[in-house]
Amino acid sequence: MKAAKHTILVLLLLSVFNVSAVLQAQGLPGQMITPGQLNLMPAPVSVQIQAGRLPITGSFNVALKNYSDDRLRGGVVRMLRRLAGRTVLSFPVEMGTEESTATLVIQCERAGDTIPSLNENESYRLEVTDRQARLIAPTVVGALRGLETFLQLLQGDRDGYYLPAIRIQDQPRFPWRGLLIDVGRHYEPMEVLKRNLDAMAAVKLNVFHWHLTEDQGFRVESKKLPKLHTLGSDGLFYTQDQVREIIAYARERGIRVMPEFDIPGHSTSWLVGQPEMGSAPGPFKIERRAGIFEPALDPTREQTYKFLDTFLGEMAALFPDAYMHIGGDENEGKQWDRNPQIQAFMKAKGIKDNHALQAYFNQRVLKILQKHGKKMIGWEEILHPDLPKDAVIHSWRGPASLAEAAKKGYDGILSAGYYIDLIFPASKHYLADPIPANSTLTPEEAKHILGGEATMWGEWVSPETIDSRIWPRTAAIAERLWSPRNVTDVDDMYRRLSVISRQLEDLGLTHEKNYGMLLRRLAGSADPGPLRTLASIIEPVKEYRRYQMRPQTMLSPLTGLVDAARPDSEAARQFAAKVDAFLSDAPRFALHRENLEQILSEWQRASRALGPMIDRSPALQEARPLANNLSVIAAAGLDAISNLAAGDARTPEWRDAHLARLDEAAKPSAALEFVVITSLRKLVIAAAELPQLRSTMQADWKKRDTMMASPQAIPKP
Amino acid sequence: MKAAKHTILVLLLLSVFNVSAVLQAQGLPGQMITPGQLNLMPAPVSVQIQAGRLPITGSFNVALKNYSDDRLRGGVVRMLRRLAGRTVLSFPVEMGTEESTATLVIQCERAGDTIPSLNENESYRLEVTDRQARLIAPTVVGALRGLETFLQLLQGDRDGYYLPAIRIQDQPRFPWRGLLIDVGRHYEPMEVLKRNLDAMAAVKLNVFHWHLTEDQGFRVESKKLPKLHTLGSDGLFYTQDQVREIIAYARERGIRVMPEFDIPGHSTSWLVGQPEMGSAPGPFKIERRAGIFEPALDPTREQTYKFLDTFLGEMAALFPDAYMHIGGDENEGKQWDRNPQIQAFMKAKGIKDNHALQAYFNQRVLKILQKHGKKMIGWEEILHPDLPKDAVIHSWRGPASLAEAAKKGYDGILSAGYYIDLIFPASKHYLADPIPANSTLTPEEAKHILGGEATMWGEWVSPETIDSRIWPRTAAIAERLWSPRNVTDVDDMYRRLSVISRQLEDLGLTHEKNYGMLLRRLAGSADPGPLRTLASIIEPVKEYRRYQMRPQTMLSPLTGLVDAARPDSEAARQFAAKVDAFLSDAPRFALHRENLEQILSEWQRASRALGPMIDRSPALQEARPLANNLSVIAAAGLDAISNLAAGDARTPEWRDAHLARLDEAAKPSAALEFVVITSLRKLVIAAAELPQLRSTMQADWKKRDTMMASPQAIPKP
Repeated sequence: MKAAKHTILVLLLLSVFNVSAVLQAQGLPGQMITPGQLNLMPAPVSVQIQAGRLPITGSFNVALKNYSDDRLRGGVVRMLRRLAGRTVLSFPVEMGTEESTATLVIQCERAGDTIPSLNENESYRLEVTDRQARLIAPTVVGALRGLETFLQLLQGDRDGYYLPAIRIQDQPRFPWRGLLIDVGRHYEPMEVLKRNLDAMAAVKLNVFHWHLTEDQGFRVESKKLPKLHTLGSDGLFYTQDQVREIIAYARERGIRVMPEFDIPGHSTSWLVGQPEMGSAPGPFKIERRAGIFEPALDPTREQTYKFLDTFLGEMAALFPDAYMHIGGDENEGKQWDRNPQIQAFMKAKGIKDNHALQAYFNQRVLKILQKHGKKMIGWEEILHPDLPKDAVIHSWRGPASLAEAAKKGYDGILSAGYYIDLIFPASKHYLADPIPANSTLTPEEAKHILGGEATMWGEWVSPETIDSRIWPRTAAIAERLWSPRNVTDVDDMYRRLSVISRQLEDLGLTHEKNYGMLLRRLAGSADPGPLRTLASIIEPVKEYRRYQMRPQTMLSPLTGLVDAARPDSEAARQFAAKVDAFLSDAPRFALHRENLEQILSEWQRASRALGPMIDRSPALQEARPLANNLSVIAAAGLDAISNLAAGDARTPEWRDAHLARLDEAAKPSAALEFVVITSLRKLVIAAAELPQLRSTMQADWKKRDTMMASPQAIPKP
Repeated sequence: MKAAKHTILVLLLLSVFNVSAVLQAQGLPGQMITPGQLNLMPAPVSVQIQAGRLPITGSFNVALKNYSDDRLRGGVVRMLRRLAGRTVLSFPVEMGTEESTATLVIQCERAGDTIPSLNENESYRLEVTDRQARLIAPTVVGALRGLETFLQLLQGDRDGYYLPAIRIQDQPRFPWRGLLIDVGRHYEPMEVLKRNLDAMAAVKLNVFHWHLTEDQGFRVESKKLPKLHTLGSDGLFYTQDQVREIIAYARERGIRVMPEFDIPGHSTSWLVGQPEMGSAPGPFKIERRAGIFEPALDPTREQTYKFLDTFLGEMAALFPDAYMHIGGDENEGKQWDRNPQIQAFMKAKGIKDNHALQAYFNQRVLKILQKHGKKMIGWEEILHPDLPKDAVIHSWRGPASLAEAAKKGYDGILSAGYYIDLIFPASKHYLADPIPANSTLTPEEAKHILGGEATMWGEWVSPETIDSRIWPRTAAIAERLWSPRNVTDVDDMYRRLSVISRQLEDLGLTHEKNYGMLLRRLAGSADPGPLRTLASIIEPVKEYRRYQMRPQTMLSPLTGLVDAARPDSEAARQFAAKVDAFLSDAPRFALHRENLEQILSEWQRASRALGPMIDRSPALQEARPLANNLSVIAAAGLDAISNLAAGDARTPEWRDAHLARLDEAAKPSAALEFVVITSLRKLVIAAAELPQLRSTMQADWKKRDTMMASPQAIPKP
């Protein structure tokens, strides 16, 4: 390739995402794009908007300068395809190398690590002027990260598509930014994994944590111990060729693939084909329920370690990543307690309890992993005084226990706060920080905090629904792990998230389109409109209540209304904002009034239409209370608004009657609950207590915030 | 398996789909389901609705009686998964074999052909009583067909899901019912092919015609001649393992896979790697445009036949189907005319023209195919006096030429009338019959008409849009080819088609969900609602006008509004029906008036909202005339309706002014056109000519019908 030599400029990494400050300081003209129009996620370390714009036309082309390879070219081709798809422009076929005429010059210095690693340099600089964009990165991975930012900068107006003139400097806050997908409980086809890898790359995540084994399924082919996957998977497993395909696909996108083989518990599916490794006599059957189960490997017999040496050795050769996750969580040791041989072993060895026995097991496994060149990582149960310092702690309890491990000298990653299967809103995950503001870690200790991972546990996700459980919320987690700590504006996060969410559809993600599909299926031949209205303001119940309220097995269909409804209702958020604005408009109560009344009337219409629809679709019968309550809560809202607008304060009795109805309507049905009740309560209370309006609102909000941050919300793996 | 012996009853196949006749004859009670509530497609040969219903509950189970194998069990598992998905019921895991307690007994006699064939017995009988359903079929393929009917019978009401008690006897009218997918112009990933095979099975199609080579791409791996696919495909080809995977997937569903290798024309991509086979000196490049191109194999050199023997021999071993399609179409022979060696060869052999030269070529190819055990099929250009009678004619000109071939003793299949790439409505395809009512074929000659194939030519389809070009319209073609000839009620077809279309989503088809996705992408961050309103009443221009109006290459993005908009607008059809009903309600003009006014006002609102949206989404700029005209045509409609309702006849000048505006608005933009103009013209003319209303309407309809049936509409492959 003909290309001039170029010296990489020293990256001036600013620690604050202070776009407005920069803008104010420069006093730039009003015509220019404002930071509020940028839709970058994760937010870069530094953004400086300049005057001017770079038009994107049909002659858009790319020049590669200094280093280039197939991985970089592949990334450019994918970027071009997405840019063309979004702009409906046809670009020249050939990739240019002529720097002077290129629209985008990519100036890269080296390949980066052959096997994606924790030490990869992912930094990049992007400079866009009227004339040209220049992406400067030390490694191909840095360039890939920059290409995603490049795409997110695309804007359009009457004059066509363009990028604003801008200077961006960027690098991640944490080197470990992952997404765990549990394919044990429910198998996910290759295309599900691939499109999620594409989405991960789009928001700069860099670790795919492949949770490959569970009580409910053993999902990877073992050529050396084929009974594991043939008997433990219902035929739903990844061949070794497919594993290599996923690893290569991830590597193309600068993403590590770390496998997890969860032992000694969570191992029922292992024991279907290998009952002799169990701590209780078999036979074992693939588990179909959700929960914590007793089967565990027998840590006292040498044949267990011989078996693990064979299996983990085979996997160590298959997965090139430096780390291997051995799970280690939620083994209650009940089978150990009941097994006389195990008890005798503990007594003989002076092992005082099951935790110590598991520590013994972990140390044996650690040696096996070391022999095969892997570093061990496990859930925080593995933490034990004997644990060597090169093991990594994966925390599901919280940043405090992570900090404790860091002080002891262990590296660690955080997943507490990022349990996306618990159906909490993005805002909650967004504000969870691996190193919270009140952290007492020294800078040296803080280096042990490597990052975090969103965890998509697989009990209640199918290939049709999994995207909607991962996206868009995981983009907010990706920002937490990439962007500076002080990027915490929740409203701005949601503004950008809704744009990014739609862009993820370009990559084939189905979180938006399968919503409509699932509702159409439930509506049968009826117009799904009313069902969509209902679904827009309900959410699945949080935490682990779904299973309690609506028990299913791993073989049950995931096609109910609870599967269609999504976490983090945007309609409810907008409704809440309008109610707050309406109430702030006291004593006029005019702001948004008409729109709120329209919305509430639409709920009433939908409620009426849902009756006959449910009659014809028995699958919706479980949602009939919700359909009925939709009308009840709408009536409360309309009543309150009309009284507020008329300036008539209502009696406490009126208020209490409505609040009682709202409380009743707030009770979940079909493992679903309304997420607009708080807003309606505000309206009702305001109508009754016009004078105390403001203090009431504050109290109510406080209560909600307390509820959201309650300690019961702490997730378990 | 424990199962009692059972004698299959003789199938009493009725020739007419006369449900109502049967019902009237039996005088059954009013509570019962009516034929108008059944959503069977294709319509079975005979349906007798009985009194009673079979409840579908969580204890639903299946017993297999007499013969069963993995293919049948796989089909049952897929049916159960779809039934569970639709009903949100969890069924028992194990497949029962106990006939007395099973909800569904499948009584099958034999496997059917090892390799799916033209002679497969696909008949079945389905009997549903209060107590049990019984599916009786001589072969597994017949049972698979019956399982699709079983699923389509599912109904629901306040008492839950059920099947109506019913007796169905069914078998196909034609043994060859195909869908061609052209993966040459645009490559389609494996999952696209698989989900389309699922959809084919759902509507009882049985031939996947895999059009694997084109000027624009050579899509199959040749191990013997690897330059073909490595240089001719941009890396987008199917490995032989993938080919086997598709063949196995199709076979599981009772579908044949017939490959097409289009020669001697349409072969540019072959010549990229094998230029020495060409009729002109190379080098050749993969074609990027749409159209008919000159490159053709050299039919005069022995090395061409040696090459074809190697390649077709390899493919004959890979594809087990009895037939191999050699294309043979649209070779204009321009390279032959210019090649002195070819001209000398023709002179020496006394070959008088290019058609005769191609006939010589075909005979040589036929011998190669015979050597490798395959029957030859080709487009009707291959018909020539010297063509042996065991070649099959594939007609794109029409049933007349097919009948002519049949009279000469050739088997044939029809694709004229089934060119789904031409964007005609389902009704047009539905009424095209391989053996039209006016056919003069003797019954013996008619046996040569084997069936037909819908053809999905690939110029303007991507993995995102192809489903919407194939479905749901191909279900109407499937009915034409399966059901009795006299099943021709277009309204009832559309009623059932809209139900079936939604059910196809269960199989992963994206024709519905990608519509919203493509519109969201075009709308950017704006609310896509107004764009959806516009898109709902426009269609891509018909026939081959898209390329003329909006030229693109095979590398251009297929993400424009023309790609989002779909053939056969349901909204336009409903609007037309309402306008007709409104006008029939003369002189009151009350029927649907309010609803029509609502619709037209919605068009005006959308038109206003589209302006700012287009400003921000330059990809929509080409659609600005449509957005503006949306308001113009709405105004004409509203004006006409208000005058009609007021009983004021308007002047001819008023009428002509509106008609002129409608004519202007009828002109396509962005290769899209409004499909509601005829309805609006009716309203305007009616408002001007109240007295002559009825005759005007008839004239207008006649004109439209003439236009629809115009001879220019005849498609070319």
